[in-house]
Amino acid sequence: MVEYLKNVKMTDPIGVFDSGIGGLTVVRALMARLPFENIIYFGDTARVPYGVKSVETIALYARQITEFLVQKGVKLLIVACNTMAAVAHAAIEEISSVPVLDVIDAGARSAVALTRTKRVGIIGTPATVNSNAYDRAIRKLDPKIHIFSQTCPLFVPLVEEGWLDHQVTRLTAEEYLRPVMERTVDTLVLGCTHYPLLKTLLQEIVGDRIQLVDSAEAMAAQTAAMLEHHGLGNPEGSHPQYRYYVTDVPYRFQSIGEVFLGKNLDDLHVVKW
Amino acid sequence: MVEYLKNVKMTDPIGVFDSGIGGLTVVRALMARLPFENIIYFGDTARVPYGVKSVETIALYARQITEFLVQKGVKLLIVACNTMAAVAHAAIEEISSVPVLDVIDAGARSAVALTRTKRVGIIGTPATVNSNAYDRAIRKLDPKIHIFSQTCPLFVPLVEEGWLDHQVTRLTAEEYLRPVMERTVDTLVLGCTHYPLLKTLLQEIVGDRIQLVDSAEAMAAQTAAMLEHHGLGNPEGSHPQYRYYVTDVPYRFQSIGEVFLGKNLDDLHVVKW
Repeated sequence: MVEYLKNVKMTDPIGVFDSGIGGLTVVRALMARLPFENIIYFGDTARVPYGVKSVETIALYARQITEFLVQKGVKLLIVACNTMAAVAHAAIEEISSVPVLDVIDAGARSAVALTRTKRVGIIGTPATVNSNAYDRAIRKLDPKIHIFSQTCPLFVPLVEEGWLDHQVTRLTAEEYLRPVMERTVDTLVLGCTHYPLLKTLLQEIVGDRIQLVDSAEAMAAQTAAMLEHHGLGNPEGSHPQYRYYVTDVPYRFQSIGEVFLGKNLDDLHVVKW
Repeated sequence: MVEYLKNVKMTDPIGVFDSGIGGLTVVRALMARLPFENIIYFGDTARVPYGVKSVETIALYARQITEFLVQKGVKLLIVACNTMAAVAHAAIEEISSVPVLDVIDAGARSAVALTRTKRVGIIGTPATVNSNAYDRAIRKLDPKIHIFSQTCPLFVPLVEEGWLDHQVTRLTAEEYLRPVMERTVDTLVLGCTHYPLLKTLLQEIVGDRIQLVDSAEAMAAQTAAMLEHHGLGNPEGSHPQYRYYVTDVPYRFQSIGEVFLGKNLDDLHVVKW
C-alpha cells in the first residue's frame, strides 16, 4: 500500500462507489466520522441492482467505475457495494492506482472483534451471500468462527419503498431471520448498504442478545484508521466538498437518496454510458 | 402496416422482448394461443429492472434490442415490457422495419371491451404508471372511461422471490389495492408482465365483482388476430422453434424463468453488451 500513497495528497477526495444509492449510507457514516474529508460518490443507478447479476457482469461494471474515479484523482477507493466487494475486489484492485478498501473486509473485522460465542450470522443479497466473501474474510481473521448466512432479496426493494417500519417488512424480516436465529449467533452482520436503514426493526426482531454490525459504520471506522495511520487525513477545519455521480436519475432518486444520506443531495452529475 | 409486411414470411419468428424474464409470461400465452409460431425472446437481464429508470435510458436500451431482433429476421415485434411500451413505443417503431405490437395497447383494448361501469383500475411499476400510457391508450378508445392507477413496486421482487401465495404478498397487495378498490372499479389491468403470476391471490383480494385483465393473454389474442388478418400465421402442424437471448444469466435465472414460461428454457444464448 505504501508505494501507492506516493501519488496522493491529503486534500484529494475519497472515492466511494456503489451499484446504486445504497452506498450513500457509507457516505453518511464517513461524513459523521471524518467531517473534513472531500468525497466523490459514484452510483451506477442505470444498472442497479447488481445483487442478482452474474460475477462476470459485475466485474466488468466495477472496472468501469474504478477507472472513472481514479481519473477524478481520488486518494482512496471505497467499495461501498457488498456485491461488488464480494465478487470484484480483485478486479478493482488490479486496475486501481490508489488503495482499495471495502465494506466486506470492514464488516468482517467488526464481527470478529465483537463475537464472544464465535457464532456469527450474515445477511445480504443473493450475490453477496453466494459468493461466500464474508465467510472467507472472517475465517481469514479467525478460522474458529462459525458462520451462518441468509439471503434477504426483498430487503432492498422494501427499503426503497420506504417501508422501514411496516408490518410487511417485519413479517419478511421474521421469516428471513428465523433460520439464522435458530443457529444462536451472537453477532449479525448487515451485509448490504441498504440494511442500516432497517437497523431499528431488525434489532427488535433479533433482541438484545444479538449485536448488529452496521457495515457502513465499520467502513467509516476502518477508513479513519487507515488515513490516520498514513497521515493522509484532510486537515481539520477544511470545508469539505461532496460530489455525486450517477448513471441515471431514476424515479424518486432525490427523495430516496436523501433518506440514505441524511442530508440534501447537491452537486449531482449524470454520466451516460 | 401493409407496406412493412411485404418483407416478411409466414415462417419468420415472432420477436418478443422484455427488460428481463417477465415477458416469458407473454411467450407462454403466445405458445398456448399460437402453437405453430416460431418465437425469439430477448430479455435484458443484465440491466433489469427498467421500471425505475429514466425515460431516456429506457428508450436507448429499447432501440438496441429492436435492432438486434430485426437483424434476426422477425416478422413481428412484441414489446412485452410494459415499461418499454409505456415510454419507448415511438422510439422502437421509428427504427423497426416490421410491425410493433405492445402489451399496453393490448391491455387497454381488453379493458375497454370488458368494463361495464367505465371505471378501470391500472396497476404497474412506477415508470409505467407515471407515464400515463394506459390512460392515453384507454381514453383514445373511449374518452368516457375513468381511470385509477396505482404503482406496486414490490410485486416484481415478491414474484421473483417466489412468494406467489405468501402472507407478506397478501398484505402488500391489500395495501396497494385498497385505494383502487375504494374507487369502485369493475376492471383491473395487471399492467406488468410479472403480475399474471399473482392473479389467483389478486383475484381473491379484489373479489368476484372486479375482472382482472391479464395483459399477457390480451397480447396473445391481439397477435393472433393480427396474424390471421394478414395471413401471416405459420402453417398448422409446423414444429415451432423457440430461442431465448439474455444479456446475463443471473442468480436463479433458470428456475424463475421456467416458472414464468411453464416449461423448460432450452436454446438459451447470452449476449454481452
